[in-house]
Amino acid sequence: MTKRFAVILAGGKGERFWPLSTAEHPKQFLSLIGEKNLLAQAVERLEGVVDTSCIYVITSSELAEVARRSAPELPPENIIGEPVGRDTAAAIALGAALVARQDPEGVMAVLTADHIIGDLECFRSTLRDAMDLAHSENLLLTIGVKPSFPSTGYGYIQTGEHLADAPAGTVFDRAKRFVEKPDAVTAQQYLKEGSYYWNSGMFIWSAASITRAFQAFRPPLYEMICALNAAADRRDFDQTFERIYEGLEKISIDYAVMERAENVGMARGVFAWDDVGSWPALDNHFTHDDAGNVVIGDGVTLEASDNIIYSKDRLTAVIGLSDVMVVQADGVTLVCPKDQAQQIKELVQRLRQDARYARLT
Amino acid sequence: MTKRFAVILAGGKGERFWPLSTAEHPKQFLSLIGEKNLLAQAVERLEGVVDTSCIYVITSSELAEVARRSAPELPPENIIGEPVGRDTAAAIALGAALVARQDPEGVMAVLTADHIIGDLECFRSTLRDAMDLAHSENLLLTIGVKPSFPSTGYGYIQTGEHLADAPAGTVFDRAKRFVEKPDAVTAQQYLKEGSYYWNSGMFIWSAASITRAFQAFRPPLYEMICALNAAADRRDFDQTFERIYEGLEKISIDYAVMERAENVGMARGVFAWDDVGSWPALDNHFTHDDAGNVVIGDGVTLEASDNIIYSKDRLTAVIGLSDVMVVQADGVTLVCPKDQAQQIKELVQRLRQDARYARLT
Repeated sequence: MTKRFAVILAGGKGERFWPLSTAEHPKQFLSLIGEKNLLAQAVERLEGVVDTSCIYVITSSELAEVARRSAPELPPENIIGEPVGRDTAAAIALGAALVARQDPEGVMAVLTADHIIGDLECFRSTLRDAMDLAHSENLLLTIGVKPSFPSTGYGYIQTGEHLADAPAGTVFDRAKRFVEKPDAVTAQQYLKEGSYYWNSGMFIWSAASITRAFQAFRPPLYEMICALNAAADRRDFDQTFERIYEGLEKISIDYAVMERAENVGMARGVFAWDDVGSWPALDNHFTHDDAGNVVIGDGVTLEASDNIIYSKDRLTAVIGLSDVMVVQADGVTLVCPKDQAQQIKELVQRLRQDARYARLT
Repeated sequence: MTKRFAVILAGGKGERFWPLSTAEHPKQFLSLIGEKNLLAQAVERLEGVVDTSCIYVITSSELAEVARRSAPELPPENIIGEPVGRDTAAAIALGAALVARQDPEGVMAVLTADHIIGDLECFRSTLRDAMDLAHSENLLLTIGVKPSFPSTGYGYIQTGEHLADAPAGTVFDRAKRFVEKPDAVTAQQYLKEGSYYWNSGMFIWSAASITRAFQAFRPPLYEMICALNAAADRRDFDQTFERIYEGLEKISIDYAVMERAENVGMARGVFAWDDVGSWPALDNHFTHDDAGNVVIGDGVTLEASDNIIYSKDRLTAVIGLSDVMVVQADGVTLVCPKDQAQQIKELVQRLRQDARYARLT
């Protein structure tokens, strides 16, 4: 049996869950849902699928230490800090080099640290089936999640011909087309049509397959893998890595490879999945009071409905407002309508220009 | 010249400025506007008009100590804690008894601790003129404030025949009618009509005149004044006071006396005046940013206009909301549309039923 690896992408700048998430403590290190933080949950989810010695975490160099503390069961050297962020293609190429160093025949799952996944056993068997198929058929696999509602917040994958049914039950189709986040009407059509799946951003392939794909479509990433392999046991590995990495372009794996390669398949994920992209996503993970408010911590409302109150260290009182979120963090309160949550990022970037707010962002 | 006294009413339960104001620290002890708290400002305003030994403060027994600390220039015994709140008529009768004990011929101004007054010299000369006239003509005077906008938040006084022009310039009219807070259309008519003034709740009369008015219209209050005079130097003064006070009805001075007596006049107040009744009133006392937001303390906004942010100990960020106030106090955050500020009282009363929130309300 081929050796299984996982590469967990745990970058992220802590903007969308501000003020709880900050540059020093981004979303993947928050315990928003569940007791463990999201990275720890991502590692725990691999139990029984990937040995801890074969799990790599790629994060920014600033966050490597907090990642090590969050996942103490992993060998510390398996947690790699990128000197600079270069989007997913570069991080995945780095992961492929690390996997190939342990086992050139290895098969790897690329996962992200900030997902919430229900039905753990279903998720694990999907991963196992996908790893087996990717290895035996030289496929670049992604996991599509069966949509439960017409989300406009996710990209979609349109499936093509049927590829395989794994013994444990996972169904694989050819991935025909990757599409961007749709508008509401289009999302409704996708849901009705039935052949569209949410693009989860999880991938499964052998280190050799993805390396060949980089060779074909993104030579600089292929060259990095070769250079890192060549430098693997040399003293100048870190310098080589940093020098090459900084010179890379920023490009996502979808653009770099998935939309170009021919051997792309999709596993149908039928487990509950949420990328918890922003505060309003919490609505799906907590119980609501009779007026539709989600109160996490200490909140009171009067003639207020469908709000999200996150208030663990103080009392938050909301009167007469609807569809607003109030988030309390250490030293900061954010008040924002749910449907304007995407603006938080802009505000945080503005605040980061101001030295007074350095500690708070 | 007759001796001048002032009785400052400083009750108040700390509901309308919650969470900054609490039962233990109500509005009159807040420095909402200006550096000194409102009671201290009320005392300071009397400089040059009333000697500090002749200024009395009537508050609740729970608040007497904080009142003494707020007004250290007053003799401590001039700050009286009511055993129970019995509305303004009872507090004023108590004040009249205290004044009469020092000087039965004394003339007194009844003021409240929670007003903001501009044009201090104008205010002081209005007071002096009113004290002189009340004494010489046996009048029960109130101060009406010339409306600067069609407020629906104040009661009004309709003026009748002209009574007097004081040498220092204050104009006095007969107070023909006291009217409740009007609706917007009526308030507009009042403003246009010109003979309506805001009922400021400030009164000027001699101790003897108001005592006679109580004798005529509210005998129990007259009897209290007599009993307190009789007990003035007795050891059982405090017990007598408490026993009688608890038995009194709750009634405002407007209902008890002003709307019944014949000898009621009004001084035209032409100074800036605001009773700072609730959070939205702060709009009138602070500068606004380009989007109309008032930010007191540390606040940032993004696509948000006409909000009030009161945030002295933390950063408050408001995105995409208008006409909302966000108030930060120790351990509590309140978020409420400006036009629903009257609901704060209800929320506070509800929270006070809950032992968990005792410290916060």
